[in-house]
Amino acid sequence: MRPKPPRKDRLPFRGKSPGKPQGKPQGNPREKRSRSGGETWLYGLHAVQAALANPRRRLGRAVLTARAAELIGTELLSRVRVEPADAEAITRMLPPGAVHQGAALETHPLAALDLDTVLNEADTGKRRVVLVLDQLSDPHNVGAILRTAAAFAVTAVVVQDRNAPPQSGALAKAASGALEFVPYIEVVNITRVLDQLAERGFWRIALAGDGAQPLSNVIPEGDVALVLGSEGDGIRRLVREHCEASAFIPIAPQMESLNVSNAAAIALYELRRGQ
Amino acid sequence: MRPKPPRKDRLPFRGKSPGKPQGKPQGNPREKRSRSGGETWLYGLHAVQAALANPRRRLGRAVLTARAAELIGTELLSRVRVEPADAEAITRMLPPGAVHQGAALETHPLAALDLDTVLNEADTGKRRVVLVLDQLSDPHNVGAILRTAAAFAVTAVVVQDRNAPPQSGALAKAASGALEFVPYIEVVNITRVLDQLAERGFWRIALAGDGAQPLSNVIPEGDVALVLGSEGDGIRRLVREHCEASAFIPIAPQMESLNVSNAAAIALYELRRGQ
Repeated sequence: MRPKPPRKDRLPFRGKSPGKPQGKPQGNPREKRSRSGGETWLYGLHAVQAALANPRRRLGRAVLTARAAELIGTELLSRVRVEPADAEAITRMLPPGAVHQGAALETHPLAALDLDTVLNEADTGKRRVVLVLDQLSDPHNVGAILRTAAAFAVTAVVVQDRNAPPQSGALAKAASGALEFVPYIEVVNITRVLDQLAERGFWRIALAGDGAQPLSNVIPEGDVALVLGSEGDGIRRLVREHCEASAFIPIAPQMESLNVSNAAAIALYELRRGQ
Repeated sequence: MRPKPPRKDRLPFRGKSPGKPQGKPQGNPREKRSRSGGETWLYGLHAVQAALANPRRRLGRAVLTARAAELIGTELLSRVRVEPADAEAITRMLPPGAVHQGAALETHPLAALDLDTVLNEADTGKRRVVLVLDQLSDPHNVGAILRTAAAFAVTAVVVQDRNAPPQSGALAKAASGALEFVPYIEVVNITRVLDQLAERGFWRIALAGDGAQPLSNVIPEGDVALVLGSEGDGIRRLVREHCEASAFIPIAPQMESLNVSNAAAIALYELRRGQ
Protein backbone atom coordinates (compact mmCIF):
# COMPACT_ATOMS: atom_id res chain seq x y z
CA MET A 1 0.00 0.00 0.00
CA ARG A 2 1.19 3.50 -0.75
CA PRO A 3 0.79 6.53 1.50
CA LYS A 4 -2.33 8.51 0.70
CA PRO A 5 -1.85 12.02 -0.70
CA PRO A 6 -2.08 14.85 1.84
CA ARG A 7 -5.65 15.84 1.00
CA LYS A 8 -6.92 12.50 2.25
CA ASP A 9 -5.00 12.88 5.47
CA ARG A 10 -7.89 13.13 7.87
CA LEU A 11 -6.19 12.76 11.20
CA PRO A 12 -2.64 13.97 10.90
CA PHE A 13 -2.11 14.24 14.64
CA ARG A 14 -3.66 10.93 15.63
CA GLY A 15 -2.01 7.59 15.92
CA LYS A 16 -4.99 5.71 14.62
CA SER A 17 -8.26 6.36 12.94
CA PRO A 18 -10.93 5.70 15.54
CA GLY A 19 -12.89 3.89 12.83
CA LYS A 20 -10.13 1.36 12.22
CA PRO A 21 -11.26 -2.12 13.14
CA GLN A 22 -9.55 -3.14 16.34
CA GLY A 23 -9.93 -6.89 16.02
CA LYS A 24 -10.23 -9.30 18.89
CA PRO A 25 -7.45 -10.56 21.08
CA GLN A 26 -6.10 -13.60 19.33
CA GLY A 27 -5.07 -15.64 22.34
CA ASN A 28 -1.90 -16.61 20.52
CA PRO A 29 1.23 -15.92 22.53
CA ARG A 30 3.34 -15.80 19.37
CA GLU A 31 1.30 -12.84 18.18
CA LYS A 32 3.82 -10.08 17.62
CA ARG A 33 1.71 -7.29 16.15
CA SER A 34 -0.07 -4.75 18.26
CA ARG A 35 -1.54 -2.75 15.42
CA SER A 36 -4.48 -5.09 15.09
CA GLY A 37 -5.43 -4.31 18.67
CA GLY A 38 -4.81 -7.84 19.92
CA GLU A 39 -2.67 -8.54 22.93
CA THR A 40 1.10 -8.44 22.70
CA TRP A 41 3.57 -10.34 24.83
CA LEU A 42 6.26 -8.03 26.18
CA TYR A 43 9.38 -9.65 27.59
CA GLY A 44 12.62 -8.76 29.32
CA LEU A 45 12.85 -7.36 32.83
CA HIS A 46 13.02 -3.65 31.98
CA ALA A 47 10.19 -3.79 29.45
CA VAL A 48 7.96 -5.83 31.79
CA GLN A 49 8.68 -3.68 34.84
CA ALA A 50 8.01 -0.46 32.95
CA ALA A 51 4.71 -1.77 31.56
CA LEU A 52 3.61 -2.90 35.03
CA ALA A 53 4.41 0.57 36.36
CA ASN A 54 2.50 2.34 33.59
CA PRO A 55 -1.09 3.16 34.63
CA ARG A 56 -1.99 3.77 30.95
CA ARG A 57 -1.20 0.15 30.09
CA ARG A 58 -3.96 -2.50 30.12
CA LEU A 59 -2.52 -5.80 31.20
CA GLY A 60 -3.27 -9.50 30.98
CA ARG A 61 -1.25 -12.08 32.88
CA ALA A 62 2.44 -12.27 33.70
CA VAL A 63 4.40 -15.48 33.12
CA LEU A 64 7.49 -15.39 35.28
CA THR A 65 10.29 -17.46 36.66
CA ALA A 66 10.61 -17.37 40.46
CA ARG A 67 13.76 -15.28 40.11
CA ALA A 68 12.12 -12.74 37.78
CA ALA A 69 9.08 -12.48 40.10
CA GLU A 70 11.42 -11.75 42.99
CA LEU A 71 13.31 -9.09 41.02
CA ILE A 72 10.12 -7.38 39.89
CA GLY A 73 8.57 -7.46 43.37
CA THR A 74 5.07 -7.98 44.74
CA GLU A 75 4.04 -4.33 44.54
CA LEU A 76 4.32 -4.10 40.75
CA LEU A 77 2.86 -7.58 40.35
CA SER A 78 -0.27 -6.79 42.38
CA ARG A 79 -1.94 -5.56 39.16
CA VAL A 80 -1.77 -8.88 37.33
CA ARG A 81 -2.32 -12.60 37.61
CA VAL A 82 1.08 -14.26 37.88
CA GLU A 83 1.71 -17.68 36.34
CA PRO A 84 4.94 -19.27 37.54
CA ALA A 85 6.94 -20.98 34.79
CA ASP A 86 10.44 -22.15 34.08
CA ALA A 87 12.63 -20.30 31.60
CA GLU A 88 12.29 -22.99 28.94
CA ALA A 89 8.50 -22.77 28.97
CA ILE A 90 8.70 -19.00 28.54
CA THR A 91 11.14 -19.43 25.67
CA ARG A 92 8.68 -21.78 23.94
CA MET A 93 5.78 -19.32 24.18
CA LEU A 94 7.72 -16.36 22.73
CA PRO A 95 9.11 -15.73 19.22
CA PRO A 96 12.43 -17.46 18.50
CA GLY A 97 15.43 -15.60 19.86
CA ALA A 98 13.46 -13.51 22.39
CA VAL A 99 15.78 -12.63 25.30
CA HIS A 100 13.14 -12.68 28.04
CA GLN A 101 15.19 -12.90 31.26
CA GLY A 102 12.41 -15.02 32.78
CA ALA A 103 9.69 -12.42 32.31
CA ALA A 104 6.78 -12.25 29.87
CA LEU A 105 3.74 -9.99 30.23
CA GLU A 106 0.52 -10.02 28.24
CA THR A 107 -0.42 -6.45 27.33
CA HIS A 108 -2.87 -4.54 25.21
CA PRO A 109 -1.48 -1.79 22.99
CA LEU A 110 -1.26 1.65 24.50
CA ALA A 111 -4.10 3.96 23.54
CA ALA A 112 -3.25 6.16 20.57
CA LEU A 113 -1.91 9.57 21.55
CA ASP A 114 -2.66 12.92 19.98
CA LEU A 115 0.47 14.91 19.13
CA ASP A 116 -1.23 18.26 19.82
CA THR A 117 -2.08 17.16 23.35
CA VAL A 118 1.40 15.76 23.91
CA LEU A 119 3.01 19.01 22.72
CA ASN A 120 0.75 21.12 24.93
CA GLU A 121 1.58 19.04 27.97
CA ALA A 122 5.33 18.92 27.34
CA ASP A 123 7.70 20.40 29.90
CA THR A 124 8.83 23.77 28.59
CA GLY A 125 11.89 24.02 30.82
CA LYS A 126 14.05 23.09 27.87
CA ARG A 127 13.64 22.94 24.11
CA ARG A 128 11.05 20.46 22.93
CA VAL A 129 12.44 17.82 20.58
CA VAL A 130 10.23 15.68 18.34
CA LEU A 131 11.84 12.78 16.49
CA VAL A 132 10.27 11.93 13.14
CA LEU A 133 11.21 8.50 11.74
CA ASP A 134 10.68 8.17 7.99
CA GLN A 135 10.42 4.58 6.76
CA LEU A 136 12.33 2.98 9.61
CA SER A 137 10.99 -0.56 9.82
CA ASP A 138 13.45 -2.52 11.94
CA PRO A 139 11.97 -3.01 15.42
CA HIS A 140 15.41 -3.24 17.05
CA ASN A 141 16.50 0.10 15.58
CA VAL A 142 13.22 1.80 16.44
CA GLY A 143 13.25 0.31 19.95
CA ALA A 144 16.84 1.46 20.50
CA ILE A 145 15.86 4.94 19.30
CA LEU A 146 12.93 5.00 21.76
CA ARG A 147 15.31 4.12 24.59
CA THR A 148 17.65 6.96 23.64
CA ALA A 149 14.70 9.31 23.10
CA ALA A 150 13.56 8.65 26.67
CA ALA A 151 17.10 9.19 27.95
CA PHE A 152 17.18 12.62 26.28
CA ALA A 153 13.65 13.63 27.27
CA VAL A 154 12.26 13.69 23.74
CA THR A 155 8.66 14.95 23.64
CA ALA A 156 7.40 12.45 21.05
CA VAL A 157 8.55 9.95 18.44
CA VAL A 158 6.43 10.16 15.29
CA VAL A 159 6.24 7.34 12.73
CA GLN A 160 4.14 6.68 9.67
CA ASP A 161 1.55 4.07 10.59
CA ARG A 162 1.83 2.07 7.37
CA ASN A 163 5.59 1.51 7.45
CA ALA A 164 6.58 1.65 11.09
CA PRO A 165 7.15 -1.49 13.11
CA PRO A 166 4.26 -2.45 15.39
CA GLN A 167 4.65 -2.08 19.14
CA SER A 168 5.94 -5.63 19.41
CA GLY A 169 7.81 -7.47 22.11
CA ALA A 170 11.03 -7.09 20.11
CA LEU A 171 10.57 -3.32 19.86
CA ALA A 172 9.67 -3.02 23.56
CA LYS A 173 12.69 -5.13 24.57
CA ALA A 174 15.08 -2.95 22.58
CA ALA A 175 13.36 0.12 24.08
CA SER A 176 14.15 -1.23 27.58
CA GLY A 177 10.97 0.25 29.05
CA ALA A 178 10.99 3.49 27.07
CA LEU A 179 7.84 2.54 25.14
CA GLU A 180 5.98 3.37 28.38
CA PHE A 181 7.64 6.79 28.77
CA VAL A 182 7.93 8.28 25.29
CA PRO A 183 4.79 9.01 23.28
CA TYR A 184 5.07 6.80 20.16
CA ILE A 185 2.71 8.38 17.68
CA GLU A 186 1.68 6.64 14.47
CA VAL A 187 0.42 9.11 11.86
CA VAL A 188 -1.02 8.76 8.39
CA ASN A 189 1.14 11.42 6.77
CA ILE A 190 4.55 12.60 7.92
CA THR A 191 4.80 15.71 5.73
CA ARG A 192 1.50 16.98 7.14
CA VAL A 193 2.89 16.56 10.68
CA LEU A 194 6.02 18.46 9.65
CA ASP A 195 3.83 21.31 8.35
CA GLN A 196 2.00 21.46 11.64
CA LEU A 197 5.21 21.32 13.68
CA ALA A 198 6.47 24.29 11.65
CA GLU A 199 3.26 26.18 12.43
CA ARG A 200 4.02 25.60 16.11
CA GLY A 201 7.47 27.06 15.72
CA PHE A 202 9.57 23.90 15.44
CA TRP A 203 12.77 24.13 13.36
CA ARG A 204 12.88 21.03 11.16
CA ILE A 205 16.23 19.35 10.58
CA ALA A 206 16.72 16.40 8.22
CA LEU A 207 19.67 14.29 9.38
CA ALA A 208 21.35 12.64 6.39
CA GLY A 209 24.82 11.56 5.31
CA ASP A 210 24.65 14.09 2.45
CA GLY A 211 23.26 16.91 4.59
CA ALA A 212 24.37 20.46 3.83
CA GLN A 213 26.12 21.29 7.13
CA PRO A 214 27.44 19.66 10.28
CA LEU A 215 24.60 19.19 12.76
CA SER A 216 26.17 21.47 15.37
CA ASN A 217 25.97 24.38 12.89
CA VAL A 218 22.21 24.22 12.31
CA ILE A 219 20.80 23.97 15.84
CA PRO A 220 18.55 26.92 16.72
CA GLU A 221 17.58 28.26 20.15
CA GLY A 222 14.09 26.79 20.27
CA ASP A 223 12.10 23.64 19.55
CA VAL A 224 13.43 21.12 17.01
CA ALA A 225 11.89 18.40 14.89
CA LEU A 226 14.64 15.97 13.91
CA VAL A 227 13.92 13.74 10.91
CA LEU A 228 15.73 10.42 10.43
CA GLY A 229 15.45 8.11 7.42
CA SER A 230 15.90 4.40 6.94
CA GLU A 231 19.43 3.04 6.58
CA GLY A 232 18.71 1.77 3.10
CA ASP A 233 16.81 4.59 1.46
CA GLY A 234 17.33 7.61 3.70
CA ILE A 235 14.68 10.31 4.00
CA ARG A 236 12.17 10.52 1.17
CA ARG A 237 12.55 13.59 -1.03
CA LEU A 238 9.16 15.07 -0.17
CA VAL A 239 9.78 14.66 3.56
CA ARG A 240 13.19 16.28 3.24
CA GLU A 241 11.68 19.22 1.35
CA HIS A 242 9.55 19.87 4.43
CA CYS A 243 12.63 20.66 6.53
CA GLU A 244 14.39 24.01 6.97
CA ALA A 245 17.85 22.45 7.17
CA SER A 246 19.71 19.27 6.30
CA ALA A 247 22.62 18.25 8.45
CA PHE A 248 25.21 15.50 8.78
CA ILE A 249 27.29 14.08 11.60
CA PRO A 250 30.96 14.38 10.60
CA ILE A 251 32.53 10.92 10.19
CA ALA A 252 35.67 9.44 8.67
CA PRO A 253 35.50 8.76 4.91
CA GLN A 254 36.22 5.04 5.35
CA MET A 255 32.69 4.47 6.66
CA GLU A 256 29.66 5.24 4.55
CA SER A 257 27.29 5.87 7.44
CA LEU A 258 26.47 5.45 11.09
CA ASN A 259 23.91 2.98 12.39
CA VAL A 260 20.66 4.96 12.55
CA SER A 261 20.17 4.50 16.30
CA ASN A 262 23.72 5.69 16.92
CA ALA A 263 23.14 8.71 14.68
CA ALA A 264 19.96 9.47 16.64
CA ALA A 265 21.83 9.18 19.94
CA ILE A 266 24.55 11.60 18.82
CA ALA A 267 22.02 14.08 17.45
CA LEU A 268 19.94 14.02 20.65
CA TYR A 269 23.07 14.47 22.75
CA GLU A 270 24.01 17.47 20.60
CA LEU A 271 20.48 18.92 20.92
CA ARG A 272 20.63 18.63 24.73
CA ARG A 273 24.11 20.13 25.05
CA GLY A 274 24.07 22.83 27.70
CA GLN A 275 20.39 22.32 28.49
CA MET B 1 37.47 -19.80 33.27
CA ARG B 2 38.75 -16.83 35.18
CA PRO B 3 41.24 -14.28 33.89
CA LYS B 4 44.78 -15.11 34.87
CA PRO B 5 46.50 -12.77 37.33
CA PRO B 6 48.73 -10.08 35.79
CA ARG B 7 52.01 -11.87 36.45
CA LYS B 8 51.03 -14.63 34.05
CA ASP B 9 50.13 -12.15 31.37
CA ARG B 10 52.72 -13.10 28.84
CA LEU B 11 51.53 -11.23 25.80
CA PRO B 12 49.53 -8.23 26.86
CA PHE B 13 49.75 -6.51 23.51
CA ARG B 14 49.00 -9.51 21.35
CA GLY B 15 45.67 -10.73 20.19
CA LYS B 16 46.60 -14.35 20.42
CA SER B 17 49.35 -16.49 21.73
CA PRO B 18 51.28 -17.75 18.71
CA GLY B 19 51.40 -21.13 20.39
CA LYS B 20 47.62 -21.44 20.55
CA PRO B 21 46.37 -24.34 18.45
CA GLN B 22 44.78 -22.98 15.31
CA GLY B 23 42.65 -26.00 14.45
CA LYS B 24 41.61 -27.04 10.98
CA PRO B 25 38.87 -25.51 8.90
CA GLN B 26 35.73 -27.38 9.81
CA GLY B 27 33.94 -27.19 6.51
CA ASN B 28 30.73 -26.45 8.37
CA PRO B 29 29.02 -23.33 7.11
CA ARG B 30 27.15 -22.92 10.41
CA GLU B 31 30.49 -22.45 12.14
CA LYS B 32 30.27 -19.09 13.85
CA ARG B 33 33.47 -18.93 15.86
CA SER B 34 36.68 -17.57 14.49
CA ARG B 35 38.74 -17.97 17.64
CA SER B 36 39.52 -21.57 16.87
CA GLY B 37 41.11 -20.50 13.62
CA GLY B 38 38.56 -22.24 11.43
CA GLU B 39 36.79 -20.46 8.62
CA THR B 40 33.92 -18.07 9.31
CA TRP B 41 31.08 -17.20 6.99
CA LEU B 42 30.62 -13.46 6.75
CA TYR B 43 27.37 -12.22 5.28
CA GLY B 44 25.63 -9.00 4.30
CA LEU B 45 26.74 -6.77 1.41
CA HIS B 46 28.85 -4.29 3.39
CA ALA B 47 30.64 -6.95 5.42
CA VAL B 48 31.35 -9.09 2.33
CA GLN B 49 32.50 -6.16 0.20
CA ALA B 50 34.83 -4.87 2.90
CA ALA B 51 36.36 -8.33 3.42
CA LEU B 52 36.88 -8.74 -0.33
CA ALA B 53 38.62 -5.35 -0.42
CA ASN B 54 40.89 -6.16 2.53
CA PRO B 55 44.27 -7.52 1.38
CA ARG B 56 44.95 -8.78 4.94
CA ARG B 57 41.95 -11.12 4.73
CA ARG B 58 42.40 -14.75 3.57
CA LEU B 59 39.33 -15.84 1.69
CA GLY B 60 37.55 -19.02 0.67
CA ARG B 61 34.59 -19.00 -1.70
CA ALA B 62 31.72 -16.56 -2.11
CA VAL B 63 28.14 -17.79 -2.33
CA LEU B 64 26.06 -15.09 -4.00
CA THR B 65 22.75 -14.39 -5.61
CA ALA B 66 23.00 -12.94 -9.13
CA ARG B 67 21.87 -9.57 -7.79
CA ALA B 68 24.46 -9.53 -5.00
CA ALA B 69 27.22 -10.55 -7.44
CA GLU B 70 26.21 -7.65 -9.70
CA LEU B 71 26.22 -5.17 -6.80
CA ILE B 72 29.63 -6.32 -5.57
CA GLY B 73 31.15 -6.28 -9.06
CA THR B 74 33.66 -8.42 -10.89
CA GLU B 75 36.73 -6.54 -9.69
CA LEU B 76 36.23 -7.38 -6.03
CA LEU B 77 35.12 -10.89 -6.89
CA SER B 78 38.25 -11.67 -8.91
CA ARG B 79 39.96 -12.84 -5.68
CA VAL B 80 37.52 -15.66 -4.96
CA ARG B 81 35.61 -18.57 -6.43
CA VAL B 82 31.99 -17.53 -6.82
CA GLU B 83 29.17 -20.05 -6.37
CA PRO B 84 25.81 -18.78 -7.60
CA ALA B 85 22.89 -19.59 -5.32
CA ASP B 86 19.39 -18.42 -4.61
CA ALA B 87 18.59 -16.50 -1.44
CA GLU B 88 16.85 -19.45 0.22
CA ALA B 89 19.89 -21.67 -0.20
CA ILE B 90 22.08 -19.00 1.40
CA THR B 91 19.62 -18.66 4.27
CA ARG B 92 19.84 -22.40 4.89
CA MET B 93 23.63 -22.40 5.08
CA LEU B 94 23.83 -19.54 7.60
CA PRO B 95 22.77 -19.29 11.26
CA PRO B 96 19.04 -18.67 11.79
CA GLY B 97 18.08 -15.02 11.42
CA ALA B 98 21.19 -14.00 9.46
CA VAL B 99 20.30 -11.02 7.24
CA HIS B 100 22.61 -11.86 4.35
CA GLN B 101 21.26 -9.73 1.46
CA GLY B 102 22.23 -12.50 -0.94
CA ALA B 103 25.91 -12.52 -0.01
CA ALA B 104 27.97 -15.00 2.02
CA LEU B 105 31.77 -15.20 2.03
CA GLU B 106 34.01 -17.85 3.53
CA THR B 107 36.87 -16.19 5.37
CA HIS B 108 39.71 -17.01 7.69
CA PRO B 109 40.12 -14.89 10.80
CA LEU B 110 42.31 -11.83 10.47
CA ALA B 111 45.85 -12.27 11.75
CA ALA B 112 46.24 -11.07 15.32
CA LEU B 113 47.48 -7.51 15.63
CA ASP B 114 49.96 -6.08 18.06
CA LEU B 115 48.73 -2.96 19.85
CA ASP B 116 52.21 -1.43 20.04
CA THR B 117 52.58 -1.65 16.28
CA VAL B 118 49.09 -0.28 15.71
CA LEU B 119 49.77 2.67 18.02
CA ASN B 120 53.07 3.44 16.34
CA GLU B 121 51.47 3.43 12.91
CA ALA B 122 48.46 5.53 13.90
CA ASP B 123 47.86 8.85 12.21
CA THR B 124 48.97 11.56 14.61
CA GLY B 125 47.01 14.36 12.94
CA LYS B 126 44.41 14.12 15.68
CA ARG B 127 44.23 12.60 19.13
CA ARG B 128 44.52 8.82 19.19
CA VAL B 129 41.53 7.09 20.76
CA VAL B 130 41.63 3.49 21.94
CA LEU B 131 38.35 1.85 22.98
CA VAL B 132 38.63 -0.78 25.69
CA LEU B 133 35.60 -3.06 26.06
CA ASP B 134 35.36 -4.79 29.44
CA GLN B 135 33.16 -7.89 29.46
CA LEU B 136 31.00 -6.95 26.48
CA SER B 137 29.84 -10.25 25.04
CA ASP B 138 26.94 -9.43 22.71
CA PRO B 139 28.18 -9.63 19.09
CA HIS B 140 25.58 -7.11 17.88
CA ASN B 141 26.67 -4.52 20.43
CA VAL B 142 30.37 -5.11 19.77
CA GLY B 143 29.79 -5.07 15.99
CA ALA B 144 27.84 -1.80 16.25
CA ILE B 145 30.64 -0.33 18.34
CA LEU B 146 33.21 -1.37 15.71
CA ARG B 147 31.14 0.38 13.04
CA THR B 148 31.03 3.59 15.07
CA ALA B 149 34.71 3.23 15.98
CA ALA B 150 35.59 3.16 12.28
CA ALA B 151 33.35 6.17 11.65
CA PHE B 152 35.25 8.15 14.29
CA ALA B 153 38.71 6.95 13.27
CA VAL B 154 39.42 5.01 16.46
CA THR B 155 42.96 3.62 16.53
CA ALA B 156 42.07 0.24 18.06
CA VAL B 157 39.31 -1.63 19.88
CA VAL B 158 40.71 -3.79 22.68
CA VAL B 159 38.77 -6.69 24.20
CA GLN B 160 39.63 -9.43 26.65
CA ASP B 161 40.06 -12.64 24.69
CA ARG B 162 38.24 -14.89 27.14
CA ASN B 163 35.00 -12.91 27.32
CA ALA B 164 34.75 -11.05 24.04
CA PRO B 165 32.56 -12.31 21.22
CA PRO B 166 34.43 -14.12 18.44
CA GLN B 167 34.78 -12.44 15.04
CA SER B 168 31.60 -14.07 13.83
CA GLY B 169 29.31 -13.36 10.92
CA ALA B 170 26.86 -11.66 13.30
CA LEU B 171 29.55 -9.37 14.66
CA ALA B 172 30.86 -8.57 11.16
CA LYS B 173 27.33 -7.86 9.89
CA ALA B 174 26.64 -5.41 12.72
CA ALA B 175 30.06 -3.85 12.06
CA SER B 176 29.03 -3.23 8.43
CA GLY B 177 32.55 -3.73 7.13
CA ALA B 178 34.34 -2.03 10.01
CA LEU B 179 35.95 -5.27 11.18
CA GLU B 180 38.27 -4.85 8.17
CA PHE B 181 39.21 -1.24 9.05
CA VAL B 182 39.53 -1.08 12.83
CA PRO B 183 42.17 -3.16 14.59
CA TYR B 184 40.19 -5.51 16.87
CA ILE B 185 42.72 -6.64 19.44
CA GLU B 186 42.06 -9.53 21.81
CA VAL B 187 44.28 -9.38 24.89
CA VAL B 188 44.75 -11.62 27.92
CA ASN B 189 44.58 -8.87 30.50
CA ILE B 190 42.86 -5.51 30.18
CA THR B 191 44.37 -3.82 33.23
CA ARG B 192 47.85 -4.56 31.90
CA VAL B 193 46.93 -2.90 28.61
CA LEU B 194 45.62 0.11 30.53
CA ASP B 195 48.93 0.36 32.37
CA GLN B 196 50.80 0.33 29.11
CA LEU B 197 48.50 2.89 27.51
CA ALA B 198 49.17 5.16 30.49
CA GLU B 199 52.91 4.73 29.98
CA ARG B 200 52.39 5.93 26.41
CA GLY B 201 50.60 9.04 27.64
CA PHE B 202 46.99 8.03 27.15
CA TRP B 203 44.44 9.56 29.55
CA ARG B 204 42.14 6.73 30.67
CA ILE B 205 38.45 7.47 31.09
CA ALA B 206 35.94 4.94 32.46
CA LEU B 207 32.47 5.65 31.04
CA ALA B 208 29.79 4.61 33.55
CA GLY B 209 26.34 5.72 34.64
CA ASP B 210 27.71 6.52 38.09
CA GLY B 211 30.80 8.30 36.79
CA ALA B 212 32.11 11.31 38.72
CA GLN B 213 31.66 14.01 36.08
CA PRO B 214 29.99 14.66 32.73
CA LEU B 215 32.16 13.30 29.93
CA SER B 216 32.67 16.72 28.36
CA ASN B 217 34.39 17.89 31.58
CA VAL B 218 37.09 15.24 31.63
CA ILE B 219 38.43 15.27 28.07
CA PRO B 220 42.11 16.23 27.90
CA GLU B 221 44.09 17.62 24.97
CA GLY B 222 45.86 14.43 24.02
CA ASP B 223 45.33 10.71 23.49
CA VAL B 224 42.45 8.97 25.25
CA ALA B 225 41.67 5.38 26.23
CA LEU B 226 37.91 5.09 26.72
CA VAL B 227 36.72 2.12 28.78
CA LEU B 228 33.17 0.74 28.41
CA GLY B 229 31.59 -2.01 30.50
CA SER B 230 28.84 -4.52 29.85
CA GLU B 231 25.24 -3.38 30.18
CA GLY B 232 24.60 -5.80 32.99
CA ASP B 233 27.63 -5.49 35.19
CA GLY B 234 29.42 -2.33 34.06
CA ILE B 235 33.17 -2.00 34.31
CA ARG B 236 34.91 -4.31 36.77
CA ARG B 237 36.30 -2.57 39.85
CA LEU B 238 39.93 -3.39 39.11
CA VAL B 239 39.64 -2.13 35.54
CA ARG B 240 38.00 1.08 36.73
CA GLU B 241 40.79 1.63 39.24
CA HIS B 242 43.20 1.71 36.30
CA CYS B 243 41.56 4.87 34.92
CA GLU B 244 42.37 8.51 35.73
CA ALA B 245 38.76 9.65 35.46
CA SER B 246 35.24 8.28 35.49
CA ALA B 247 32.59 10.06 33.48
CA PHE B 248 28.91 9.82 32.62
CA ILE B 249 26.74 11.00 29.75
CA PRO B 250 23.99 13.22 31.21
CA ILE B 251 20.56 11.61 30.70
CA ALA B 252 17.04 12.05 32.03
CA PRO B 253 16.31 10.29 35.35
CA GLN B 254 13.47 8.23 33.86
CA MET B 255 15.97 6.01 32.04
CA GLU B 256 18.54 3.99 33.93
CA SER B 257 21.08 3.85 31.13
CA LEU B 258 21.87 4.16 27.45
CA ASN B 259 22.43 1.21 25.18
CA VAL B 260 26.20 0.61 25.27
CA SER B 261 26.71 1.14 21.53
CA ASN B 262 24.79 4.43 21.73
CA ALA B 263 26.88 5.50 24.71
CA ALA B 264 30.03 4.66 22.73
CA ALA B 265 28.78 6.66 19.74
CA ILE B 266 28.10 9.74 21.86
CA ALA B 267 31.44 9.49 23.62
CA LEU B 268 33.37 9.13 20.36
CA TYR B 269 31.49 12.08 18.87
CA GLU B 270 32.42 14.14 21.93
CA LEU B 271 36.07 13.05 21.67
CA ARG B 272 36.20 14.12 18.00
CA ARG B 273 34.50 17.48 18.56
CA GLY B 274 36.52 20.19 16.87
CA GLN B 275 39.14 17.75 15.56
